[in-house]
Amino acid sequence: MEPLFATSRTEDLVPRIREFVQNELVPLETAEHLTGNFSVVAKRLDEKRELVKQAGLWGLQHSVDEGGLGLTLCEFGQVSEVLAWSPFGHYTFNCQAPDIGNMELMHKYASDAIKRQYLEPLKEGHIRSCFSMTEPEFAGSNPTRLGTTAVREGNDYVINGHKWFTSSADGASFAIVMAVTNPDAAPHRRASMILVPTDTPGFQLVRNISIMGDASDHWGSHAEVRYDDVRVPVGNLIGGEGMGFVLAQERLGPGRIHHCMRWIGISERCFDLMCRRAATRELEDGVMLGEKQFVQGFIAESRAEIDAARLMVLRTARNIDQFGASAVRNEISAIKFFVANVMLQVVDRAIQVYGAMGITDDVLLPWYYRHERGARIYDGADEVHKTALARSILKEYGLDTKKKAADLAATRA
Amino acid sequence: MEPLFATSRTEDLVPRIREFVQNELVPLETAEHLTGNFSVVAKRLDEKRELVKQAGLWGLQHSVDEGGLGLTLCEFGQVSEVLAWSPFGHYTFNCQAPDIGNMELMHKYASDAIKRQYLEPLKEGHIRSCFSMTEPEFAGSNPTRLGTTAVREGNDYVINGHKWFTSSADGASFAIVMAVTNPDAAPHRRASMILVPTDTPGFQLVRNISIMGDASDHWGSHAEVRYDDVRVPVGNLIGGEGMGFVLAQERLGPGRIHHCMRWIGISERCFDLMCRRAATRELEDGVMLGEKQFVQGFIAESRAEIDAARLMVLRTARNIDQFGASAVRNEISAIKFFVANVMLQVVDRAIQVYGAMGITDDVLLPWYYRHERGARIYDGADEVHKTALARSILKEYGLDTKKKAADLAATRA
Amino acid sequence: MEPLFATSRTEDLVPRIREFVQNELVPLETAEHLTGNFSVVAKRLDEKRELVKQAGLWGLQHSVDEGGLGLTLCEFGQVSEVLAWSPFGHYTFNCQAPDIGNMELMHKYASDAIKRQYLEPLKEGHIRSCFSMTEPEFAGSNPTRLGTTAVREGNDYVINGHKWFTSSADGASFAIVMAVTNPDAAPHRRASMILVPTDTPGFQLVRNISIMGDASDHWGSHAEVRYDDVRVPVGNLIGGEGMGFVLAQERLGPGRIHHCMRWIGISERCFDLMCRRAATRELEDGVMLGEKQFVQGFIAESRAEIDAARLMVLRTARNIDQFGASAVRNEISAIKFFVANVMLQVVDRAIQVYGAMGITDDVLLPWYYRHERGARIYDGADEVHKTALARSILKEYGLDTKKKAADLAATRA
Amino acid sequence: MEPLFATSRTEDLVPRIREFVQNELVPLETAEHLTGNFSVVAKRLDEKRELVKQAGLWGLQHSVDEGGLGLTLCEFGQVSEVLAWSPFGHYTFNCQAPDIGNMELMHKYASDAIKRQYLEPLKEGHIRSCFSMTEPEFAGSNPTRLGTTAVREGNDYVINGHKWFTSSADGASFAIVMAVTNPDAAPHRRASMILVPTDTPGFQLVRNISIMGDASDHWGSHAEVRYDDVRVPVGNLIGGEGMGFVLAQERLGPGRIHHCMRWIGISERCFDLMCRRAATRELEDGVMLGEKQFVQGFIAESRAEIDAARLMVLRTARNIDQFGASAVRNEISAIKFFVANVMLQVVDRAIQVYGAMGITDDVLLPWYYRHERGARIYDGADEVHKTALARSILKEYGLDTKKKAADLAATRA
Repeated sequence: MEPLFATSRTEDLVPRIREFVQNELVPLETAEHLTGNFSVVAKRLDEKRELVKQAGLWGLQHSVDEGGLGLTLCEFGQVSEVLAWSPFGHYTFNCQAPDIGNMELMHKYASDAIKRQYLEPLKEGHIRSCFSMTEPEFAGSNPTRLGTTAVREGNDYVINGHKWFTSSADGASFAIVMAVTNPDAAPHRRASMILVPTDTPGFQLVRNISIMGDASDHWGSHAEVRYDDVRVPVGNLIGGEGMGFVLAQERLGPGRIHHCMRWIGISERCFDLMCRRAATRELEDGVMLGEKQFVQGFIAESRAEIDAARLMVLRTARNIDQFGASAVRNEISAIKFFVANVMLQVVDRAIQVYGAMGITDDVLLPWYYRHERGARIYDGADEVHKTALARSILKEYGLDTKKKAADLAATRA
Repeated sequence: MEPLFATSRTEDLVPRIREFVQNELVPLETAEHLTGNFSVVAKRLDEKRELVKQAGLWGLQHSVDEGGLGLTLCEFGQVSEVLAWSPFGHYTFNCQAPDIGNMELMHKYASDAIKRQYLEPLKEGHIRSCFSMTEPEFAGSNPTRLGTTAVREGNDYVINGHKWFTSSADGASFAIVMAVTNPDAAPHRRASMILVPTDTPGFQLVRNISIMGDASDHWGSHAEVRYDDVRVPVGNLIGGEGMGFVLAQERLGPGRIHHCMRWIGISERCFDLMCRRAATRELEDGVMLGEKQFVQGFIAESRAEIDAARLMVLRTARNIDQFGASAVRNEISAIKFFVANVMLQVVDRAIQVYGAMGITDDVLLPWYYRHERGARIYDGADEVHKTALARSILKEYGLDTKKKAADLAATRA
Repeated sequence: MEPLFATSRTEDLVPRIREFVQNELVPLETAEHLTGNFSVVAKRLDEKRELVKQAGLWGLQHSVDEGGLGLTLCEFGQVSEVLAWSPFGHYTFNCQAPDIGNMELMHKYASDAIKRQYLEPLKEGHIRSCFSMTEPEFAGSNPTRLGTTAVREGNDYVINGHKWFTSSADGASFAIVMAVTNPDAAPHRRASMILVPTDTPGFQLVRNISIMGDASDHWGSHAEVRYDDVRVPVGNLIGGEGMGFVLAQERLGPGRIHHCMRWIGISERCFDLMCRRAATRELEDGVMLGEKQFVQGFIAESRAEIDAARLMVLRTARNIDQFGASAVRNEISAIKFFVANVMLQVVDRAIQVYGAMGITDDVLLPWYYRHERGARIYDGADEVHKTALARSILKEYGLDTKKKAADLAATRA
Repeated sequence: MEPLFATSRTEDLVPRIREFVQNELVPLETAEHLTGNFSVVAKRLDEKRELVKQAGLWGLQHSVDEGGLGLTLCEFGQVSEVLAWSPFGHYTFNCQAPDIGNMELMHKYASDAIKRQYLEPLKEGHIRSCFSMTEPEFAGSNPTRLGTTAVREGNDYVINGHKWFTSSADGASFAIVMAVTNPDAAPHRRASMILVPTDTPGFQLVRNISIMGDASDHWGSHAEVRYDDVRVPVGNLIGGEGMGFVLAQERLGPGRIHHCMRWIGISERCFDLMCRRAATRELEDGVMLGEKQFVQGFIAESRAEIDAARLMVLRTARNIDQFGASAVRNEISAIKFFVANVMLQVVDRAIQVYGAMGITDDVLLPWYYRHERGARIYDGADEVHKTALARSILKEYGLDTKKKAADLAATRA
C-alpha cells in the first residue's frame, strides 16, 4: 500500500480484502481451474460470493446513491490492486469487466424501468452482462468506424451487425450494443448504446473465440456475435441517440484505470512468486537462485518499475477524481501503455526465474502470460496511446497534427 | 534461402519441402488443430506422412550409413527452417524432437538387437519414443545433479526415480532414461542412458503436465513420469556405463542447432504473417496498417534480426560440420540465447500488428507465443548460456572462473 | 510541477526560480560556454550570483538554524529540478555538489572554529571546496577499501594517499578527505573525514582528469590528487574518528536524491528541446518531424518515464523527510538506477530527433550526453544498486545473501 | 577473422595490418591525442604513413587499374575492421572518409586533367579533400532538397550555397560540392557534383563546428561552409550534369559498408577492453569483476551481437561484389541501423564495466562514445533506414507506400 494515497477507508478495506483473497481465492488456483472452462471455477466462486456478502464487502465500487461506499477512483484503485492478487478476485467481488462498466453506465443513463429489470439483478450478481462494440471488419484504433446499425421502426430499433470480443456473452442476460443510429451525423455523433436481452430473436452467439489456446466459457469467454434483425423497444436506449461515443469515452476513462490497477496487482503477485522462488530454489549445494545477479537484476528492475507504475496510476486516479477524466487524458494514455508493458515484463521475468516449472500450469504465471498479452492491445493498443499522447503534447508546442490530418483527408476527398 | 550456405542438395530439397509444407500442412492450421489435443491433428499428419514417403522426402536427417541422404548439419539446418514454417512440419517428416535425437543416439551407440527392435520402427514412424532426463527436484542448470538411480542386479538394471518434461511419453513405445549407475564416480561420469519400454512394470506416466493452458496428449505432451523398481536388461544400456553426460552433450550440441533452425523458420513464418497483415489491413479509408512507422519499425527490426540469427546459426552448423561441436561450444551458447530471443520478439511484434485478432487462435501466432516461451529455458536457459559463453571468453583473458568456483567449493567442503 | 507534492513554498519558489533560470542562465548556453573551460562561464555566473542574492534566493538548501528556509528534502527536490533546467543552475545558486554536501556535513559535524573559517565563506560563495574519497586503485563499489591513511602525530594528522574524482579541487580552498585513521577497527569503522586546506604542503593536484574529451577547470574539473605527508591539526576532523562511513552514508542518501532531482530537470529540459524540434522542423513540404510515429514514440515514452521518475523521487524524498534515509534505503537504490537510465534515454532520443544538429554543441544535448553518462556509475553503479535492492528484498523472503557472503568469506579466510 | 569470408589476400593482409595497428597506432592513444586538436596527432600519423608505404600497405582500397590490389568490397571490409582497431587506422592508411569516397568518384568520373591535378596527390596523401552535401536548412532524410545552386555562366559554374558537416574541410585542398544545376529537372536529376578548390574566392570556411565538446581541426573537423559566388570552370564537373544523386548513391552504398566494417572494428576493440578489465579488476579480495553475472551478461550479449553484425556486413559486401549495391539495398539499410546500434551498445557496456575510469580519457572508450554517437544519424538515420527497409518489403506484399505517398503529394499540390 502506498501511504501517499492511503485513506482511512483503504486502510480498513485493503487488509481485509487481501486476507480474503489470500485465504479464499488463492487456494483455487489449481491447474484444473486455470486451464479448464471458467464455468468449473465459477461454481466455486459463486459460493465465495456469499462469503463476500457476509463480510460486508459486496458492491465495493458503487457510489453512495447506488447504496455503495462511494469510494473515490483512487481508493477503488487501491482495492482493485488487492483483488487482482488472484485472477478470481474481481469476479468474486462482482466488480469484473464488463459488468462493472455496464453497471456504471446504466446507473447514470438507463431508464428506471431498465434499472429495475436489469441493473438490480446485475448488482446482486444474479445475472451477467456483456458489451458489444468491436467489429472484426474494422480496426479498433478508430472506434467511429462501425458497421452495425440500429434502424428505428415505430417504437423499436432493428439492429443488424457483426461483433467480436463481446466478452462474457456466453451466459449473459443482456448485451449493451454499440450501433449506428444516426448515419448522417458527424462521425462521433452517429452511434448509440442499446440494451439487448440475449434471448431476443436474432441475437446469435456465433462462438466463443479461442484465445491463446482456450475458448473457455461463461464469464471467461470472448464471443463472436451476430445481430440479425434484432428488434428491441426504443426504451432500451442507454443515454440519448448519438451519445454512443460520449458514453464509450466515459466508460473507457475509468475502465483504463481499473485495468491498470489490476495490472499492478498482477505484477505484485508475480513479483511475489518470483521472489519466493529465488529465495528457496537451490541451484547447487547451498547456492540459491536468488544469489545470482541475473535474478537479482530481474527483481530490482521489477521492483522499481512496479513502484513507478503504481504511483503513475494512483496519481492519475486522483486527478480524475479531482478534475475529471477528460482533463487527464494524457496521463491515462501514458499509464495505459506504461503499466501494461511493466506487467508483461514482470510476468516474463518471473517465468524465467521459475525455469521449466514457469511454463507449467502448476504455477499461476502462464495464466497471466496468456490472458494478459492482450493488455497491450485492448482499450487502445500501445501504439494508439503513444501517438495520442505525443500529438497532444505537440499541440502545446504549436503542431496540430490532428488538424493537419483532417485538412489532408478533406483535400483527398 | 541464404546463398552463402546453399548447396546443390539444399537447392533441390528446400523448394520441394517448402511447397509440401505450404500445400499440405498450412491448411491444417485451424483453431481446432491448434488448441485441441495433439492426437486429433496427429491422425491427419499420419496421412501426410504417407505423402512424404511417396515424395521420397522421408528420413531427411539420416546419415548415409543409416540409409539417408547424409546431409551435413548445415544442410539439414536449412531444411529444418522450412519444416518449421508449420508447427506440424517436423512431426510429419519424422524428424521431430525427441525422436530425432533418440534415433541419432541409438544409431551410434545401441546394440544391434536394440536397433532392430526399436530403432527400425522408430525410423519408419511406426512407433514413438521419449527422453527422460530433467527432474523436478533439481535445477536443470546443473545436469549432474540427478536423483534417479539404476542399480545393477544380475543382468538387469533396477531403475527408480522421478522425471518431468519427458516430452511425448504419452503413447511412446520406449523412453531413454538418464540414471545414476556409478554414484561414486566423478560427477560427470555417474550417469548412464538406458532404454526402458514404456510397458515395463513400474514405468508410470503420472500425468501430461499442463503447459501454458494445455496438457495436450500424444507427441504434443510433456509428461511427469515415475520409475518405480523398473527392471530392464543390461543390454538396454545405450553406450557404456557412465557415458550419460558425454552422450547428452553429444545429443544437445546438434539438438540446439536443430532448435535454432526451427526458431528461424518460426520467425520467418510470423514475419510473413506480420507483413501480410500490414499490407492488407485498412486502418481508415485508404490508409493501411503498413504505412504506420511503428509497424514499419517492427518489420525492419525483425528482418535484420532474423537475418542475423540465420547467419549465426548456419555458420555454427558449418563449423560443427568441420570442427565438431565441442570446438564451437561458444558459438552454440551464443545462438541458443540470441535466436530464442529474436524469435520471441518477432512473435510478439506480429501479435501486436494483428491487434485483437493476434491473440485469437484464428491465427497461428498464439500457438508460437505459448509453445515457444520455453525456448529461453529448455536446453539451457538464457542465463546459463550467457554465463557459459562469458566464462569461456574470460578464460582466454586469464580469468578461470570455473577453477575459482571449484577451489571455492573445495574450500567450503 | 507535480501537485501531489506541491507546498506553498514550492508554489512560491519554483516559478520564480524557473523564470530566473530561463532568463539569466539559458542565454549563456552557447557553444563557447559548453565546450571551453568552466572558468570562462564561471565569471559570468558569478555576476548572476549577485542577482540571485538580490532576488532573495540565495541559500535555498539551508536549514532554518543555518539561516535558510528550512525546505524539506521533498521541497528542495522540486527546486532542484528547476535549477537543473540549465547546466549552470546549481552553481549559480551555490547549491552545487560537492559544496552542498560539504556544507551540510560541516554544519552538523565541524567545530565552531572550522565553521567560522571555512563554512561561512563557503556559504557566501566566496570560496569553493572538494571531497576526496574515491581511489583509483580500489573499486568504488566497496567503499571500505581505502589506501589513504591519516596517522596521528601529536596534535596533527599526517595524511598519505592517492585520490581521483576529487571533483572541483582545481581552485578549491579545502578538501574533505576520507582516510583510514583506525586500521584495526571493523571495516566500517576505520575511516574518518578530515578537512585539508589545499595550500597545505604535500597536497598535490596531479591533474584535472580529462573526462569525455574535456579536462575543464575550476568547478567543472575532476582532479587526481596526491596527499604526501600532508599535516593538518586534529581539530580538522569532521565528526569523530572512525565515523567516516557513517558520515559518507549520511551524505550520500540526500546526495542521491539531489542527483535524481537534477536528472529529472535535465530530462525535462531535453524533453522540451525534443518537442520544440519535432514541432518546428520540416522534413518535406508541409510535413513536420513531429508527424512521424517514430518521433511520437520517443516523445510519448519519454513523457511517461519522466513522470514515473519524478513521482518515484519525490515520494522517496518525502519518505526521507518522514522516516529518515536509512528507512528507505531500498527506494533510494531504486531511484538511483531507474532515474539515471530514464535521463540518459531521454537525452539519447532528443539527440536522435535533432539529427546531425543533435551532436553539435549548437544545442545543449551533447553537454548532457557527455557529462551525465557518469550518472549510471557515480554514487553507486546501476549494478551495485540493483544488487543491493534485490538482496534487501530477498532478505524479507528469508534469503540473507549478505550473511551467506560473510560466512563464505570467513570460510575462505 | 571470420573463416567464411577469408581469402588468401585477407589471410595475408589482415594479420600484417593488425600488427601494424597494434604496434604503431595503439601507443598513440593517449589522452593528449584523444582530446586535443587532430593536427597534433596528425603530425605523428604522417610519420606512420611513411611506415605504411615502406611496408607496401599503402593504397589498400584501390582497384587494379588504379594501381592497387583490387580487393573486393568483402575483402576490404575485413581489412577495414582491423584498421578500426585504432581510431587512427584509416587516416594512417589513407583510406579515411571522405577522401576514400572522393578518390573513388574521381577515379570513375573525373576528367584526366582533374585526376592529374587532384586525384594523384590525394592518393599519395599529399593533400586532403572534403565533400559538401548536407545543408543546415534542410532535413538530411530527403537529399533531393538542396538550396545550393551552380549556375552556368560561359565556361564557368557560379556556386552559391550554405553547407555544414563538410567534414575535414579545414586544411583540405578541394571540396566536391553538391549543387543544383538543373532546377527544372525531376527532383533526382537536378543536382551535380562539382570540384571546388578551397582557395577559390568565395569559398568560406565559416567554422569548425563544435561536436560533442570538440571542434577539433584538420581531418578531425566538421566544417560549416559558405559558397558565395564561387566560380569554377565547367571542367570541374564530376560526371555529367544532373548526375549528382546517382553518384551520391554510388558513393553511399559502399560508404555504408565501410562505416559498418569500421563499427565492427570499434566494437571488437571495446569488447577487448571490456574483457581485459573484467579479467583483471579486483572488486574485493580475490573476487574479480568478471565473476559477476552482470558483467558476464554484457560480455556474452556483446559477443553474440558483434558476431551477428559481422556476418551481416560481410554477407552484404559479398552480395554487392556479386550483384551490385542497388540489388542489396535492403541489406544495406538493415546493416546500417543494426550495426550502429550494436556498436553503441558495446561501447556503452564497456564504459559501464570500467566504472569511473570508463568516462575518463585515460581509456579509449569516451572517444568512441562521443565520436560515434553520430553513427545512428549520418548516412541515413536509423529511422530512415528502417522505414526504407520496411517499405521495400511491404512492396513485395503488394503495398506500395511510395506510390501512395506520391499520389497523395500530387493530390495535395
